[in-house]
Amino acid sequence: MKIKVIVPVSTDFWNDLVRDAYEKHKDPGTEIDIINIKRGPESIEQIYDDSWAALPALLEVEKAEKEGCAAAIIYCFGDPALLAAKEAVSIPVVGLCEPSIHVASMLGRKFSIIGVGGKVGYGLMIDNVTRYGLLHKLASVRLTDIKVLDIRKEFDKLVKILTEEGKKAIEVDGADVLVLGCGGLLNIADILQEKLGAPVIDPGLVALKVAELLAKLKLRQSKIAYISPYPKKRID
Amino acid sequence: MKIKVIVPVSTDFWNDLVRDAYEKHKDPGTEIDIINIKRGPESIEQIYDDSWAALPALLEVEKAEKEGCAAAIIYCFGDPALLAAKEAVSIPVVGLCEPSIHVASMLGRKFSIIGVGGKVGYGLMIDNVTRYGLLHKLASVRLTDIKVLDIRKEFDKLVKILTEEGKKAIEVDGADVLVLGCGGLLNIADILQEKLGAPVIDPGLVALKVAELLAKLKLRQSKIAYISPYPKKRID
Amino acid sequence: MKIKVIVPVSTDFWNDLVRDAYEKHKDPGTEIDIINIKRGPESIEQIYDDSWAALPALLEVEKAEKEGCAAAIIYCFGDPALLAAKEAVSIPVVGLCEPSIHVASMLGRKFSIIGVGGKVGYGLMIDNVTRYGLLHKLASVRLTDIKVLDIRKEFDKLVKILTEEGKKAIEVDGADVLVLGCGGLLNIADILQEKLGAPVIDPGLVALKVAELLAKLKLRQSKIAYISPYPKKRID
Amino acid sequence: MKIKVIVPVSTDFWNDLVRDAYEKHKDPGTEIDIINIKRGPESIEQIYDDSWAALPALLEVEKAEKEGCAAAIIYCFGDPALLAAKEAVSIPVVGLCEPSIHVASMLGRKFSIIGVGGKVGYGLMIDNVTRYGLLHKLASVRLTDIKVLDIRKEFDKLVKILTEEGKKAIEVDGADVLVLGCGGLLNIADILQEKLGAPVIDPGLVALKVAELLAKLKLRQSKIAYISPYPKKRID
Amino acid sequence: MKIKVIVPVSTDFWNDLVRDAYEKHKDPGTEIDIINIKRGPESIEQIYDDSWAALPALLEVEKAEKEGCAAAIIYCFGDPALLAAKEAVSIPVVGLCEPSIHVASMLGRKFSIIGVGGKVGYGLMIDNVTRYGLLHKLASVRLTDIKVLDIRKEFDKLVKILTEEGKKAIEVDGADVLVLGCGGLLNIADILQEKLGAPVIDPGLVALKVAELLAKLKLRQSKIAYISPYPKKRID
Amino acid sequence: MKIKVIVPVSTDFWNDLVRDAYEKHKDPGTEIDIINIKRGPESIEQIYDDSWAALPALLEVEKAEKEGCAAAIIYCFGDPALLAAKEAVSIPVVGLCEPSIHVASMLGRKFSIIGVGGKVGYGLMIDNVTRYGLLHKLASVRLTDIKVLDIRKEFDKLVKILTEEGKKAIEVDGADVLVLGCGGLLNIADILQEKLGAPVIDPGLVALKVAELLAKLKLRQSKIAYISPYPKKRID
Repeated sequence: MKIKVIVPVSTDFWNDLVRDAYEKHKDPGTEIDIINIKRGPESIEQIYDDSWAALPALLEVEKAEKEGCAAAIIYCFGDPALLAAKEAVSIPVVGLCEPSIHVASMLGRKFSIIGVGGKVGYGLMIDNVTRYGLLHKLASVRLTDIKVLDIRKEFDKLVKILTEEGKKAIEVDGADVLVLGCGGLLNIADILQEKLGAPVIDPGLVALKVAELLAKLKLRQSKIAYISPYPKKRID
Repeated sequence: MKIKVIVPVSTDFWNDLVRDAYEKHKDPGTEIDIINIKRGPESIEQIYDDSWAALPALLEVEKAEKEGCAAAIIYCFGDPALLAAKEAVSIPVVGLCEPSIHVASMLGRKFSIIGVGGKVGYGLMIDNVTRYGLLHKLASVRLTDIKVLDIRKEFDKLVKILTEEGKKAIEVDGADVLVLGCGGLLNIADILQEKLGAPVIDPGLVALKVAELLAKLKLRQSKIAYISPYPKKRID
Repeated sequence: MKIKVIVPVSTDFWNDLVRDAYEKHKDPGTEIDIINIKRGPESIEQIYDDSWAALPALLEVEKAEKEGCAAAIIYCFGDPALLAAKEAVSIPVVGLCEPSIHVASMLGRKFSIIGVGGKVGYGLMIDNVTRYGLLHKLASVRLTDIKVLDIRKEFDKLVKILTEEGKKAIEVDGADVLVLGCGGLLNIADILQEKLGAPVIDPGLVALKVAELLAKLKLRQSKIAYISPYPKKRID
Repeated sequence: MKIKVIVPVSTDFWNDLVRDAYEKHKDPGTEIDIINIKRGPESIEQIYDDSWAALPALLEVEKAEKEGCAAAIIYCFGDPALLAAKEAVSIPVVGLCEPSIHVASMLGRKFSIIGVGGKVGYGLMIDNVTRYGLLHKLASVRLTDIKVLDIRKEFDKLVKILTEEGKKAIEVDGADVLVLGCGGLLNIADILQEKLGAPVIDPGLVALKVAELLAKLKLRQSKIAYISPYPKKRID
Repeated sequence: MKIKVIVPVSTDFWNDLVRDAYEKHKDPGTEIDIINIKRGPESIEQIYDDSWAALPALLEVEKAEKEGCAAAIIYCFGDPALLAAKEAVSIPVVGLCEPSIHVASMLGRKFSIIGVGGKVGYGLMIDNVTRYGLLHKLASVRLTDIKVLDIRKEFDKLVKILTEEGKKAIEVDGADVLVLGCGGLLNIADILQEKLGAPVIDPGLVALKVAELLAKLKLRQSKIAYISPYPKKRID
Repeated sequence: MKIKVIVPVSTDFWNDLVRDAYEKHKDPGTEIDIINIKRGPESIEQIYDDSWAALPALLEVEKAEKEGCAAAIIYCFGDPALLAAKEAVSIPVVGLCEPSIHVASMLGRKFSIIGVGGKVGYGLMIDNVTRYGLLHKLASVRLTDIKVLDIRKEFDKLVKILTEEGKKAIEVDGADVLVLGCGGLLNIADILQEKLGAPVIDPGLVALKVAELLAKLKLRQSKIAYISPYPKKRID
């Protein structure tokens, strides 16, 4: 059972990190194949970046289906091209935001998204939560100014800030579950969970387990809801 | 990793069936321990039955935690005592309705619940979907008159009826995903999925995979949302 | 016209207090019969307690119908077993939370619930308001740490705290109506109403008047919504 | 305890009918004083009529307060000037639609409004239910073409039609409670309730009992939500 | 193309100010005819005032249609009699609140209303936003205590206060668009927009441009939604 | 005042038709500049096509700003890249769906979208209406099977079908306003409006007038909601 992981940014910066995490958490029968897109933005921090990543990510999902993959993960919390990809193929396609906030909704009454990238990302987050119909469960979005590409560089500072923001999300905004709002926030959920006493969701890991769940149970997005496109002239 | 499966009815009718299905679908490292409650109703078809099953089911969840189980599943689509059990213990507790409708929400825009037990069950279904905040995703509930305890007796007739009801849910009510509304509807999802061309969710199997997901990722219900009860005089 | 009042806790602590209040406020033709349950928790402060109280309360409602009562009141703001009881019988069954928040909704745009029992009770309150479809009217829930069974012991301190919490509900949370979140908060609404200049609803008294209203107008819960259970094996 | 009943139409056609019904259903201590407005429309069937009735009805509510009434009822399902009247005075003011749909919401999951006046009235009904925040509980509005002023003339035909519409509301639209959508539909609720097997709410009688409930419990609309107007030049 | 502008207050205080603004911003082919009502309140600051203004404003809208106007604007943010007027005539009728908050919704995710008249006006604002179905887009309402009729007298102080309130709406309440909550707040939007760095909507100007848009595209309120009243006895 | 009109499909098929319509309806001071994208799909009928059109459309919006345009219209009812474009530039950017459904909401209580492209387009429509927060106003979406590129070829047949679908939207689905769901449905709104007796909105014309409205009143999307992207490596 091969799962294709598409990192929708034009850098291979994340591939090894994600592979390590996925190798550690995948089920025995799962094989992981990670690639990044060649065109597109070097990071996705706002809706604008999503538009740059959409088509290259979409084409990789189509390729994954042709390669016989059992599922595809678009590895970014912005879920670029996710709904288009659900239309494009007949294998399950999973983003990071959508499964995370559904799992968060099962674990509490209100979740907050805490993450990086600063103010430019609020719209992307809120629009996605709205699109998935869970805005009434969202307590708040709190994004520190550290840029996505500086996550590893400023790791200790970041963990400290996210701990503080998570605390405020719980005490001020009324969250009882936290969702990390970026696929690059690897190896952080456990640390925060211990410090905060609330569930902290690592969206990349949840995406992996939900992709496995769907593939194992022979489930995928409804092709009545996400109808396959018919051939027409489309110029890349 | 032991998962306790609590069938909240006063009959052992379902235990072997569920065990078979779970042994087939569980992950390698999972151990399944199935029991039914001794007091309570012989089947759960409406809110009234839920009240009869609540306390015995709750006490079994508490026992499961003491036994060192990694997670507990209350194996009934009515999710009796689910929220009370989330308060009671610190291991993840999973029902059948809650995870199923969240997975359904990831796979389409509108889901219908199709099941058994007849008109008495509509309220239970709708109130649970409301409680979980997904009523805006519910296209319809369609419950045939066959009683829960007659599912295996009238299996072929039932499959035929559910196929018809599923078709109406899609064509008349606008559903694009179907959820089977009873834990006793085992070995039916695949048949219906083939006939209907839409995802059909087996709630028992989804509950198993979600319980495994939570246990593996060290997630559980938020103890800020579901606070443990303090000791007081409570007479059984 | 006899109204059965069921106090769903395993103590007779409240019976006289409730009887006094009800004798004072009932209509001329009303006869009040108060009992408490013998099994169950000594107080209801969270969802967990609800599950302990559900079945004994439900059985008392069924008994009340057999005794020829015109209506039954489940005298607790947690409304344990309320919906099950509406299914069980054909006389009107009334809780404390449901009628109070509907009356509150007629008197203002946003109500807050202020009460006792501390943090463990938030979930129970919010889930009930959600279940009744009035979450968009809820400004906040504010519960002081005083336990339900200490209400009479710490009465003066409690009145002072509730006055402060009510003020914050109005000034900080935007409430314009207050609902007392416990049936044990007797003889407090008038005091608070005077101090706060906003309507303060005594849920026990509202429950009484709504039960009388329904009985007099020959109204009761819809038996299309709350269908009577058919006989099956149910073990207590 | 005097309750002023203001029939907001420029005809005394309804006064005796309403008086008879109210004398029969009022509590022992209640005194009923019924008047109609002198200016305004002869019947209220759509939003346009509401604007004609608003100021004369409002002035009568102010007069009622000066006369020392304990409560005022604006006796029309269109609730003309209801919110303005709540601002104007410090005695409880009650309409017919608002309390009826709240009581309906306590008795079932979905209510339909069935009434007279034809298509012109749908907007008025739906806007009022929206204003009171209960649109999610509304199954449908069904208004037969018989005009308000012909209710008594065509009584038997009307009862037959409303029975049919009520049946459709239940079977087609999914209602489990019915609300009569006009104060002129007196002596009909009991007949329909018997025929339809669902609660049928007489809005005039519910208004009376809710007005009594508020007056007896010393409750009224929040003056924080409905602030009294300060004197300024207002020309009638 | 003549547009009738009805200022629904019993003073001609605003006519010249509005005429100046409208002459400056109207399209070349537009002719503006401004009048105020003779009866009614001298200013509209709460729901109570609305009831005083409703009928005189409504009659002026009917007159405008008879005069052959292409559209009518009820020039007040309270939108008195707006829905009744939509029923009354077959030319487009436009208020100030309704088009402003729809335009605000196109420009951002959350808008705040900032204005004058103090606390008495909150209910009017919130009920109108609810009526138009955009409450989920409303971040806050902030009304300073300056009275409507003192706007020009205290202009500089007012601009300063509104700047501060606008800033709080953005920083504290989460608004990203501001709507001025009164037709008398002329020549203020541009100043605030510059200071605040967020769109600030002048409701009077938006009403003008939307009226022109509708008239030019031959659009008007649906007469299926807003059905013309049939003749009956209505006494003024 | 130059408005750039970007037709986000890789064919110049529509340019002359749109130019004709816009020249006829634009205000005197408006200058129209129409172009189509060179890459992308030949038509946009579902979410998948949107992803192909997004980046080329976005780059044209950025170009329009550099050229000094006063506003940009993305001329497609799918609104591809609309929110990204709002982030990208500081001139107002307008789509076809967003302004149309807001204007529809001002004209009635429920609107339906009727259009072409068949079943593949439902998801795109519903997701956009959800994103704009107006799903509660949507009565239905009805899309005939005629493809977008066959609109002019099958014009008479199309008008007949849309008339029938519009009628069903009104009579069966409860719509009182209709919105044409494609920018290619030019010169149809007036015909349908006459036949159906309900407002029928031409989304292209509404987009033009709203773009003019925003430009004239110096309004644009909030740059607090749609923050400009900072430079980073983005590969086309």
